[in-house]
Amino acid sequence: MNTKCDFDFEAFDFQKMNGLLPAVVQASSDGEVLMVGFMNREALQQTLERGYVTFFSRTRNQLWMKGESSGNRLRVVTAHTDCDRDTLLLRVEVEGAGLVCHRGTRSCFTESVLRPETASPRNDAPEKESR
Amino acid sequence: MNTKCDFDFEAFDFQKMNGLLPAVVQASSDGEVLMVGFMNREALQQTLERGYVTFFSRTRNQLWMKGESSGNRLRVVTAHTDCDRDTLLLRVEVEGAGLVCHRGTRSCFTESVLRPETASPRNDAPEKESR
Repeated sequence: MNTKCDFDFEAFDFQKMNGLLPAVVQASSDGEVLMVGFMNREALQQTLERGYVTFFSRTRNQLWMKGESSGNRLRVVTAHTDCDRDTLLLRVEVEGAGLVCHRGTRSCFTESVLRPETASPRNDAPEKESR
Repeated sequence: MNTKCDFDFEAFDFQKMNGLLPAVVQASSDGEVLMVGFMNREALQQTLERGYVTFFSRTRNQLWMKGESSGNRLRVVTAHTDCDRDTLLLRVEVEGAGLVCHRGTRSCFTESVLRPETASPRNDAPEKESR
């Protein structure tokens, strides 16, 4: 077991999602939710050992350290699990240009699914009038 | 289709998780991540139509409006999807006592998985010295 994790890995519920935990990545500076990825046990161990977020890619079936090639790596500031121990919340600092999404935005969550009249002023994604 | 959703439901990728999308729930007031649940198409439609977060319970195999009995309902302020359209981010106002977790805390993410020496000052979860 790695030395930075003060948590029994057996306590995580990897069963519920066939060996994976959803991991929410949040900017520690301002709380913006940047993305959600998935970690198997190995990805979580590597994340905690190295201090940088590593996911398990469901499509490529392999580990990938987020930002390893682009430089926009996610340095772990805090890591928490929830009451069911089946989900992770990682607060991070984004290195490099600070852009997490492959589309060139800071966060992956840029598309609103609500009509403008039901959204609050904080909803700053571009909206269409109707569809 | 409901009238509040300015988004084609066919565009969501429900396939990747057997009909479910992970949904991150974040407090709109201060950005605290409160919980993660899962939505099938029906749960998402109900959430957008009623304006309150409704999940699909994987263990009970049914819809449940979060806080319907406790009063701690989650009123949707904004709703976004990500670049892959396989995840949701819902910013909410928590009604009632404002406690989202069944353990009586505001957020479900209360257990740190990092040792104190590697965590930032923002990590305020109780820590053990060693294990």
